[in-house]
Amino acid sequence: MARRPRLVTLTTDLGSAYAAQMKAVLYRSVPPGHVVDITHDLVAHRIPEAAFLLERIAPGFPSGTVHVAVVDPGVGGARAGVAVRCSDGTLLVGPDNGLLWPVAQRLGVDAAVRIDPTRLVHGQSPSATFEGRDVFAPAAAHLALGRKLERLGSRVRLTPMPLAAAARRRGQVEGEVVHVDRFGNAITNVPSDWVPEGAVVQVSWGRRRRTLSRVRTYSDLEAGGGGLIGSSFGTLELSWREDSAARRLLLQVGDAVAFHPTARRSGRGSHIRGPTRSAGKTVNIARRR
Amino acid sequence: MARRPRLVTLTTDLGSAYAAQMKAVLYRSVPPGHVVDITHDLVAHRIPEAAFLLERIAPGFPSGTVHVAVVDPGVGGARAGVAVRCSDGTLLVGPDNGLLWPVAQRLGVDAAVRIDPTRLVHGQSPSATFEGRDVFAPAAAHLALGRKLERLGSRVRLTPMPLAAAARRRGQVEGEVVHVDRFGNAITNVPSDWVPEGAVVQVSWGRRRRTLSRVRTYSDLEAGGGGLIGSSFGTLELSWREDSAARRLLLQVGDAVAFHPTARRSGRGSHIRGPTRSAGKTVNIARRR
Amino acid sequence: MARRPRLVTLTTDLGSAYAAQMKAVLYRSVPPGHVVDITHDLVAHRIPEAAFLLERIAPGFPSGTVHVAVVDPGVGGARAGVAVRCSDGTLLVGPDNGLLWPVAQRLGVDAAVRIDPTRLVHGQSPSATFEGRDVFAPAAAHLALGRKLERLGSRVRLTPMPLAAAARRRGQVEGEVVHVDRFGNAITNVPSDWVPEGAVVQVSWGRRRRTLSRVRTYSDLEAGGGGLIGSSFGTLELSWREDSAARRLLLQVGDAVAFHPTARRSGRGSHIRGPTRSAGKTVNIARRR
Repeated sequence: MARRPRLVTLTTDLGSAYAAQMKAVLYRSVPPGHVVDITHDLVAHRIPEAAFLLERIAPGFPSGTVHVAVVDPGVGGARAGVAVRCSDGTLLVGPDNGLLWPVAQRLGVDAAVRIDPTRLVHGQSPSATFEGRDVFAPAAAHLALGRKLERLGSRVRLTPMPLAAAARRRGQVEGEVVHVDRFGNAITNVPSDWVPEGAVVQVSWGRRRRTLSRVRTYSDLEAGGGGLIGSSFGTLELSWREDSAARRLLLQVGDAVAFHPTARRSGRGSHIRGPTRSAGKTVNIARRR
Repeated sequence: MARRPRLVTLTTDLGSAYAAQMKAVLYRSVPPGHVVDITHDLVAHRIPEAAFLLERIAPGFPSGTVHVAVVDPGVGGARAGVAVRCSDGTLLVGPDNGLLWPVAQRLGVDAAVRIDPTRLVHGQSPSATFEGRDVFAPAAAHLALGRKLERLGSRVRLTPMPLAAAARRRGQVEGEVVHVDRFGNAITNVPSDWVPEGAVVQVSWGRRRRTLSRVRTYSDLEAGGGGLIGSSFGTLELSWREDSAARRLLLQVGDAVAFHPTARRSGRGSHIRGPTRSAGKTVNIARRR
Repeated sequence: MARRPRLVTLTTDLGSAYAAQMKAVLYRSVPPGHVVDITHDLVAHRIPEAAFLLERIAPGFPSGTVHVAVVDPGVGGARAGVAVRCSDGTLLVGPDNGLLWPVAQRLGVDAAVRIDPTRLVHGQSPSATFEGRDVFAPAAAHLALGRKLERLGSRVRLTPMPLAAAARRRGQVEGEVVHVDRFGNAITNVPSDWVPEGAVVQVSWGRRRRTLSRVRTYSDLEAGGGGLIGSSFGTLELSWREDSAARRLLLQVGDAVAFHPTARRSGRGSHIRGPTRSAGKTVNIARRR
């Protein structure tokens, strides 16, 4: 191959020992240093959370990277294994169970194929329980070396599986928790600018309800207090000062949350500390991006 | 050196921060990208489980790879540190406490030496508590750069420490749980084809007993149900549909398990869902591979 | 650039998914294989423990390495982001919150600058919640490619934040637990040679008190027993034979511990097993290194 090999990233719920078996296969073909771990600690079997993270993380890598994702409770069953070439040259490999759909939509699909295991170099009959190693890793190695996507199988359309979308309804914002991070921040699917900094909102989920301020960053939260922050994913998160908001507020991935504006503005005695940058603005929770 | 440097993999129970100290030593000699994490999350001090995983995972890497393994409760004590050249050119480095024995047997031993710390380049008196960093990493760097195994020390025979073997006895299959993975699958040492797909077997362990079907893959398990599956390691595993079999069945590494054939065949109303590929075959639990 | 790119290491409390976003930014500039994970599992927000580990681990890498560290509860707030060139050519990037101070002191500071985000290549307005991705990773990429530190911002002095120091007072040694490792070893800040092998010491912490022997290595501990060992960090650790000393002794990071010499010597019937190398030496707990 004249072209330089591509980077291959791995995003899985497999833990490190199974992921290492994918690296073993990849390193039979790609040069040292070309396999990058995104994570192997995804919550097991939880496709929407993994799809959200992949959609947010993968596009940060150079275009042309091969992203392999494996969260695959249906492994060995009827769902296809697919490889996708995106409009910017990024490549995706994984099960066609919704995991790749959001990132593929974000980057634009140029072509998608159903991987035919018999066409893989050194193709052997894959195990029924670990296509990550036996199908996706060899397919990714093929693509990393610059070989054609179309040689992996015949064209297919990805099965649509959009992430839950936030909505504005009846004067409030409705979304859901899509990820809980290592710190216990509960990340929602609501775009950060739907609730401007300085707003005081009533947050409701299940039968619970709480008034929280929308602040700029973690150090704006009171000691021992919580609030709403624009996360690094571009969406709102519920956070607690050096503690787990998910545990404090009993929030889980999949929980519906609603944000309702109040007449109050954050200030002295409220949940945020010190001045905020948007203290003079009108609260306009319904403005468009 | 004219030869290209070799990949070095790390398989430890050390956690990431101690493993990073091994990487630091390696990267003083080997080029960027040549150190690959297999895992640093092995159950602490549990040599047989680590030996099983190493024996299954390491041979998947290109021959010529240097595999460093550290599960070493006897560090600083009398057990030797060893380096092994296998018949296919694969190299192994670690304590001579049984950890390397199964993979060395599988690949065949060409030569083994007891590592003499005074012969290591930049050799210094190793700490009594971290030979992974002070002995094994420098020895692996030596080998990764293509230098001779024999320069590391004098010839030695590895201490034999075979893994527990499964057996067929009194009309049943007897084995043990050798690994519990991140999903809670309880992987045994019983070759997968000793219990054919479609069989219904009585599984007994400790004072417990349960009838389970041998199915092909996870999606063949009933919602909320468990069964026996041929794992990606080539041995049988006890699995639960999107849940932990180890927790459900109270199984741990080291537990003896027996599989006893029953007259029943899996079908409607049983523990497996839908047709299985082997539905027409005779149950012959005792056939040889 | 004529120079070879430098290795970049990452030491964070972020977990793998956020760390992957830093890798994404880095790999837009640095070649494959040049990003090395030290750890992403640091205890969240605990700056002194992270600073201790960084000070012990980073200097093991080749001089010239770029070490990025992120434990940053004040992200988005007033604390500066800094880049430091050490006397041996090692580079450090992270928040000026004390995290970098100990390693910078150990290696010697040649120059330090406050990172000006507007000077970063492809500089964009950083998020308020993830400067690791938006400021530190681009700054590290700049340095990894051999570009000048001084271009990142103007000179600054690091905020001093020394680690707690052990002391000898009133005939005893006083220190504190600075790290608990994956095995539950409680690592202190007391230099290992302040308590010689073979000594029997009374250890006190909180209202607890226990007599333990100072032994050489883990295998010198009695089955089911604990002791004091010289850790691979060069400081004393409280360890338990194949168990967690932190759990057994209810020790946490930050706990003050004192070691008081006793007239006893370890021997038969005591907490250590077999002869120790220093059995003939006089106990001199107050000798200087």
